[in-house]
Amino acid sequence: MAKFVAIIPAGGAGTRLWPLSRQSSPKFLHDLTGAGRTLLQATVDRLAPHADEVLIVTGAAHAEAVAQQVEIDPANIIAEPSPKNSMPAIGLAAAIAQQRYGDAIIGSFAADHLIDDEAAFAHAVEEARRLARCRTLVTIGITPTGPDTGYGYIRPGEKITRDGLAVVEFMEKPGLDLARRYVADGYLWNAGMFISTAEGLARALAQRSPELAAGLAEIASIWDIQWRREEAMGRLWPEFPSCVIDRVLAEPLAAAGEVAVVPADMGWSDIGGYSALAERLGGGELASTDPEQVIASDSPGAVVFPGDRPIVLHGLDDAVVVDGDDVILVTTRSRSAELPEVLRRLNERGRSDLL
Amino acid sequence: MAKFVAIIPAGGAGTRLWPLSRQSSPKFLHDLTGAGRTLLQATVDRLAPHADEVLIVTGAAHAEAVAQQVEIDPANIIAEPSPKNSMPAIGLAAAIAQQRYGDAIIGSFAADHLIDDEAAFAHAVEEARRLARCRTLVTIGITPTGPDTGYGYIRPGEKITRDGLAVVEFMEKPGLDLARRYVADGYLWNAGMFISTAEGLARALAQRSPELAAGLAEIASIWDIQWRREEAMGRLWPEFPSCVIDRVLAEPLAAAGEVAVVPADMGWSDIGGYSALAERLGGGELASTDPEQVIASDSPGAVVFPGDRPIVLHGLDDAVVVDGDDVILVTTRSRSAELPEVLRRLNERGRSDLL
Repeated sequence: MAKFVAIIPAGGAGTRLWPLSRQSSPKFLHDLTGAGRTLLQATVDRLAPHADEVLIVTGAAHAEAVAQQVEIDPANIIAEPSPKNSMPAIGLAAAIAQQRYGDAIIGSFAADHLIDDEAAFAHAVEEARRLARCRTLVTIGITPTGPDTGYGYIRPGEKITRDGLAVVEFMEKPGLDLARRYVADGYLWNAGMFISTAEGLARALAQRSPELAAGLAEIASIWDIQWRREEAMGRLWPEFPSCVIDRVLAEPLAAAGEVAVVPADMGWSDIGGYSALAERLGGGELASTDPEQVIASDSPGAVVFPGDRPIVLHGLDDAVVVDGDDVILVTTRSRSAELPEVLRRLNERGRSDLL
Repeated sequence: MAKFVAIIPAGGAGTRLWPLSRQSSPKFLHDLTGAGRTLLQATVDRLAPHADEVLIVTGAAHAEAVAQQVEIDPANIIAEPSPKNSMPAIGLAAAIAQQRYGDAIIGSFAADHLIDDEAAFAHAVEEARRLARCRTLVTIGITPTGPDTGYGYIRPGEKITRDGLAVVEFMEKPGLDLARRYVADGYLWNAGMFISTAEGLARALAQRSPELAAGLAEIASIWDIQWRREEAMGRLWPEFPSCVIDRVLAEPLAAAGEVAVVPADMGWSDIGGYSALAERLGGGELASTDPEQVIASDSPGAVVFPGDRPIVLHGLDDAVVVDGDDVILVTTRSRSAELPEVLRRLNERGRSDLL
């Protein structure tokens, strides 16, 4: 049976969870829910039973932190010299898998998502691996729990297998009215999970971005020769375009009828912000990983992350209070959605040290 | 001319300014407005030009901090072994003044009030010293700036001198409607400033609380014999009743027509809470002693006191954020009035360390 190689792109700043998530220490390196494992560790834990190998792609600045958190062969940590978005990252990992195993199936899963129902996830991955024989690209689509405007949607088509459907189209993040219609029409959330044969992915990429495909193949061909790896990355990576797998492969392949989706209801969350994080923490009167250090009164819906000292909160609804190591954030659940803008202004004010 | 001895009772927890003000370090020890002087130091500065001597009465726990902040003869710091409220404190200081100078005039002024117009204050004190020859007790009454329900009021009567009036009655803190009527009727705020001859105060106290008066006189008689001071305090102080000068002297003396008041409009504030403190700091978009360390957006009326790290505030009206050394407070201007209650609950939760 073909090897299954799990690819974990570990990137993204997680600015809507600032200052829990920092540029220097993004959210995948943190145990945001107090589970005892960081998001990255939980992702590896979830994939390890199914995968013959795990490859992690991350920024060079985080490679050491990743190595400290995960027991993994250093050759399986791909350190990006500069951020090029998801296509070069997943493409290189897939090319390395193909170089190593020829007929490998790869599956790419973000490092900073949470999944409650591991059995449902395992079932979906199994089904997706089977479907990867019939379609160029397979995605796992999340059964929506509501008309969320924070996600892209997948428009499913006819049934291919018992649990697999064709993908008609990937839809951009909608407004609320459109999101409601999508949910009513059985659309699924796009969680960015992609499964394919390594060979099929390389072929599809070669058709649409031949230079990138050739560059990735060249790096992959010498990846496991340690002394040549750095030279090849240094020479070729800076020339790659920054591009996302959705634009380069998923959307055109869907238009060509080459994408399938496995719907899954598995308690998924990308913990996109403080409200989502609060939900994961129970969502009651007070959401905190350290409630002992929070003395809250008359403050329903509070989300409070204390540092090394207690936080006293009184008389504020839906407050978000985070004691970072070197900065304190005070906002509300709804206004925390504007954190990317707040951080942009921080940067303008010359406080990039706080990002 | 009779000596003028200024008495500064330096007590009061200032719980409505917690955690700027702490049990272990009450507000008079702090430079709350960023003026460069603590409230106690500013009070001493204000009185020193007028007084032949300054006596500070404070809790034993704060005597050392007081000595560090103020250049003063240690014999002029009266350390209370236990809190007994204002009457024993002022009474003992007055008795020491009488012991030292016989015909001294004393004036008592809280350690944690702010006064903008020093000339108006000086003028009022001068007038009060003159009036202390005609009435047993003289107070300085603050011209109200609005119908504040946080102060007691003074009901003035007929004119005695150009700037002095008789006091008909001291009124309890009123409700808002009553406060409006008081202000319309020309009542004054009671700022707890009392001026009298040392001898007159001792006599009035001897009539109403003979045992306390005798005890205070006994301590005063040996106060300047250092080796006897501690013994006398240790033996007599614990027996004194806890009582306030308003109840024991001011109110009954007013009923007897023995109190005069000098109205004064001098930019006075007792900085009773975060709103009052914000007013003193300019009262604009952001009130802070360290605005460089505050990055606030869309948060009008914020009152933010950072510690050693910046505070980012976004999308909250009238927020109060205080980074204390070992605790962080987040509340609003209006709800900060409930801090005494919040601290009571903290104490119940076993967190007396934070008070």
